[in-house]
Amino acid sequence: MRLVTNEFAPLKNVRVKDGFWSRYQDIAKEKIIPFQWRAINDLVPDIEPSHAIKNFRIAAGLEEGEFAGYVFQDSDVAKWLEAVAYRLSIDPDPELEKTADGVIDLIAQAQEEDGYLDTFFQIAEPDKKFTNLNECHELYCAGHMTEAAVAYYEATGKDKLLSVMRRFIDLIDQKIGPEEGKLHGYPGHPELELALCRLYRATGEERYLKLCAYMVNARGTEPYFFEEELKARGYTGFWNGGHQDHVDGKYNQSHKPIREQKAAVGHSVRAGYLYTGAADLAAETGDESLARAMEILWNNVTNRQMYITGSVGSQVWGEAFSFDYHLPNDSVYGETCAAISMVFFAKRMLRMKPDRKYADVMERLLYNGTISGMALDGQHFFYTNPLSMWEEATKKSGVAGHIRSKRPGWFGCACCPPNLARMITSLGGYIYSSSADTAYVHLYVGSDAELEVGGGTVPLSQSGNYPWDGRITLTPGAGKYRLALRIPGWARTFSVTVNGEAYSPALENGYAVLNREWHDGDRVVLDLPMPVEFAEANPLLRADNGRVAIMRGPVVYCLESADNGEDLDALQVTDPGDFRCETDDSLFPGMVKLTGPALRRKPWNTDDLYRLCGSADLEETEITAIPYAFWDNREDTREMIVWIRR
Amino acid sequence: MRLVTNEFAPLKNVRVKDGFWSRYQDIAKEKIIPFQWRAINDLVPDIEPSHAIKNFRIAAGLEEGEFAGYVFQDSDVAKWLEAVAYRLSIDPDPELEKTADGVIDLIAQAQEEDGYLDTFFQIAEPDKKFTNLNECHELYCAGHMTEAAVAYYEATGKDKLLSVMRRFIDLIDQKIGPEEGKLHGYPGHPELELALCRLYRATGEERYLKLCAYMVNARGTEPYFFEEELKARGYTGFWNGGHQDHVDGKYNQSHKPIREQKAAVGHSVRAGYLYTGAADLAAETGDESLARAMEILWNNVTNRQMYITGSVGSQVWGEAFSFDYHLPNDSVYGETCAAISMVFFAKRMLRMKPDRKYADVMERLLYNGTISGMALDGQHFFYTNPLSMWEEATKKSGVAGHIRSKRPGWFGCACCPPNLARMITSLGGYIYSSSADTAYVHLYVGSDAELEVGGGTVPLSQSGNYPWDGRITLTPGAGKYRLALRIPGWARTFSVTVNGEAYSPALENGYAVLNREWHDGDRVVLDLPMPVEFAEANPLLRADNGRVAIMRGPVVYCLESADNGEDLDALQVTDPGDFRCETDDSLFPGMVKLTGPALRRKPWNTDDLYRLCGSADLEETEITAIPYAFWDNREDTREMIVWIRR
Repeated sequence: MRLVTNEFAPLKNVRVKDGFWSRYQDIAKEKIIPFQWRAINDLVPDIEPSHAIKNFRIAAGLEEGEFAGYVFQDSDVAKWLEAVAYRLSIDPDPELEKTADGVIDLIAQAQEEDGYLDTFFQIAEPDKKFTNLNECHELYCAGHMTEAAVAYYEATGKDKLLSVMRRFIDLIDQKIGPEEGKLHGYPGHPELELALCRLYRATGEERYLKLCAYMVNARGTEPYFFEEELKARGYTGFWNGGHQDHVDGKYNQSHKPIREQKAAVGHSVRAGYLYTGAADLAAETGDESLARAMEILWNNVTNRQMYITGSVGSQVWGEAFSFDYHLPNDSVYGETCAAISMVFFAKRMLRMKPDRKYADVMERLLYNGTISGMALDGQHFFYTNPLSMWEEATKKSGVAGHIRSKRPGWFGCACCPPNLARMITSLGGYIYSSSADTAYVHLYVGSDAELEVGGGTVPLSQSGNYPWDGRITLTPGAGKYRLALRIPGWARTFSVTVNGEAYSPALENGYAVLNREWHDGDRVVLDLPMPVEFAEANPLLRADNGRVAIMRGPVVYCLESADNGEDLDALQVTDPGDFRCETDDSLFPGMVKLTGPALRRKPWNTDDLYRLCGSADLEETEITAIPYAFWDNREDTREMIVWIRR
Repeated sequence: MRLVTNEFAPLKNVRVKDGFWSRYQDIAKEKIIPFQWRAINDLVPDIEPSHAIKNFRIAAGLEEGEFAGYVFQDSDVAKWLEAVAYRLSIDPDPELEKTADGVIDLIAQAQEEDGYLDTFFQIAEPDKKFTNLNECHELYCAGHMTEAAVAYYEATGKDKLLSVMRRFIDLIDQKIGPEEGKLHGYPGHPELELALCRLYRATGEERYLKLCAYMVNARGTEPYFFEEELKARGYTGFWNGGHQDHVDGKYNQSHKPIREQKAAVGHSVRAGYLYTGAADLAAETGDESLARAMEILWNNVTNRQMYITGSVGSQVWGEAFSFDYHLPNDSVYGETCAAISMVFFAKRMLRMKPDRKYADVMERLLYNGTISGMALDGQHFFYTNPLSMWEEATKKSGVAGHIRSKRPGWFGCACCPPNLARMITSLGGYIYSSSADTAYVHLYVGSDAELEVGGGTVPLSQSGNYPWDGRITLTPGAGKYRLALRIPGWARTFSVTVNGEAYSPALENGYAVLNREWHDGDRVVLDLPMPVEFAEANPLLRADNGRVAIMRGPVVYCLESADNGEDLDALQVTDPGDFRCETDDSLFPGMVKLTGPALRRKPWNTDDLYRLCGSADLEETEITAIPYAFWDNREDTREMIVWIRR
């Protein structure tokens, strides 16, 4: 029996009309997608040519040439197509669709007779297909292209790319599986697993689910496939270019069977995609032990290894998780893609059980650690998202050498920008879900939706000025069903009115449930008071003891040197009640900035580095905090901190 | 005119009789030196054979075989000999001297006809002598062996090794210098510079000083010698084993002329040895611009880049300095050898000007960041000296991967243990200095000395229970001279009595000067009150804001999990006046441990990682602090911190 208790409203049934997110969607439409198109076609001067489209042209026999780019270069084209699909879902554009159709025609031409499709192997290593699943991203690229195919099919009804990918998946299914003579393998970089679940839902073909189940369940069993594969290759590594002794299974979560993994380890994007696929699989197949395993990993990540911004992956070594409660703020990796993968994971967990703990984390990610990856111009991107940045350290110290003080432009390894584009353009698909009798509102994003609930299709709209204001107005369509509104963990209180009258809803797993017969014109107002708050971390989180993060609603704030001068660690705050909120449109329309009192350690009038303590030497000052996601959108980025001394 | 204003009493004129340091000298005598002897002779099971003596035997033609060990393996023999020399100075031992004489005979046999002496090149690369000064430590080994030769000569009067090294130095002098046809080079790892100054003082031969001056002054001038040398080698690197594009001059302080270097950069041991040699050179040659340059670098290191324990080298990358005020406590490198090099530097600066700022740093180093490198069993050693250690991070996170939670035994790269041995055994040479009319007491170490002052040789003794007690009794010998006692920077007050009567000395650069005619039987008592103190760091030192270090006298204390449980960052202290001192001999005879009240953040009764702040949730507790240098001498080393939240 499936473990799906509620189904998200598909993207095409949700129209986002939101002060905050519509702007981000505009940036994705107007900046990221067109820029990425030029990038994958090598039309942007001053950046390393991507060669991504060219690789397909060469594989298709339309051009002569060598393969160029990363071994996973095809995924850049896939991610562009996927973002285009969502963009067409929310805002049709025949010209863009025609361009995408042309790319799909090219991809189809590049596909080989037997269904194979991966331009790196086709052009550069035609004899080595399926010999290095661990390192060479063949299945990863297949996953991304499959996601694009499903998204494009759902957006446009066109199934050409879907057919292409079904043929390739069929070939993979012939090559990989438990049967003798097949490879007992799985992706070195998970992604195909979650794509197979999507493909299964789009087509109804059980075989895809079975292949996914094989890959998830075989992973980490002995004998270790990646070790066997390495042996078969004569112990040669792809990335190190020479002899390789063994495979670090922890790096890609293949060190033990997934049900035995109790803590997140290794490369955080790989982890996020694997967990997403496994949770999806558990839900679709009713695999309760797998669902429990994913719950354990969810709890480990969110209760032990996640920054307050939602970022994960505390270290640059392996772009990886380190261990419980080890969340340094200045040497963090916190890759944008990893944060995005946790949004995907949250949605899969929510689908099994509507519990606000999943949606709270999703919200934490959406307003903080994901979009922090992009400048407000839509043209500069962070891969790493530190919670404390000292520009001099990023330049002069190895400990922060991977951190940038300013978002660079497009990278050669262009994973994060298109990942942001697909998350932002598909945001409508994360807001609402429904079961037979309940319509769930997980996110407070202004939008018009149609939901399958109470035996029919009902409209549901919401509006407000979230995340700057906690008053949300909802207009549920007529019908008898339960309206379940998430009460965020950050809200100390809340109130609900229906048609102007106070309503006392039941609380179920953090959702306020309004159970009644709805009539046209009904109007629900949810009020979530948003005072300025200080948040603190668990005492076991060594790095944040004695410090607080300023929050308002779901938004984590930070201090930047642009507002507060240098040496931000010399500041301490006292009482959140003394802060005032002020709308400041200069960075982002409607942005609320916070200003309040603080104490600053006085500069010493000697050159000494240490001295015996005397009486406290503090001076009163005023500080200004801006949303963390918006940091580094001004000239001065010498310093930034989230966790401020109290 | 020389810039030497006061001369240190030579080691042979000072007999250390001190509760603290005599024990360390015993450890050096009984543990380190005998262990190192067995190590360099490959007689210790379970450690990688050193091959150091064997290399000399092969070079001498007494054995067949290949070179083994690091390219600087010879220096292990040199450091052993140097420590033996000091040990013989303080405590003659005919058996040990005979062993050392045998080693010296071997070294003499290994020397080539033309004076050349470096077993790596002699055995492994005889055609490549003097072709890679940058990377291959030829001049570094020559420096260490020269130091050993001078020390052995001063200790025993035997000049065999001195003659050997003079011949090699003469050869180096023929190869390197400003003249056409010579290499315009200098050591990749400084050390020979300071050794040349010592050799000059021991022999009076000006040529050595001239060679030192050439090396110090040519360093970092254009065209960069190490770049030229790399080019001449066809761009091949020794350590990377292949193609090398360029040389990172900052790494070994050859990026610009030394007088233009305003901040310490690069490998911290290289820096410390270079500054020591340059300061020595400036003093001996009266080079005022060089002396000023060393003063600038001294100030930069001690006022901007030194931990409160005296450790330097804030990062593992390059075992190097990073930049001003960047002193992370948990990712620090803080190599033991680098701390020791700063003791050497301090002595050279003191010799030019008796200012307590130099001696204060020397004391800080001696009681904290140097001896922290050795376990109290004398058989386990730290190369890195963190100020905050979380065992799990050292094992599971790259950021602390270079840090050990327990001192390992002897290393393959055995630089630090013998360096500690030579520092500890030669400690007597750092306590006293004198000018024509003034006897300086820089350190409060129980000892009997003879000083040249007031036109004659006078005895001077001191006794006490330093660093555990601040009452020091001195008995100056008869004569008319000024007795100058350092009043440490950590002392808020002090008092002096002469023969039981209060005395008000003048203060000169932090020294209390007692100017009188001394008579036999005179007794001076200096009282330096030693309350428990909290020290704070300059607000610009980001990592320590809001934190204090517990100090008593010159001793920096730390908290260990062995006394205080885990999660030490959840603790905060309030008032040093509430601490009590208690002698606890269990770790070290006479050790004073400190116990006092603290607050601890209460563990949360939820699994949450973050929450909104409510009322402060603190519980009262008691903490125990032990001297930082003694940490990790018990079983439990899960956590340690120096800087505690206030």
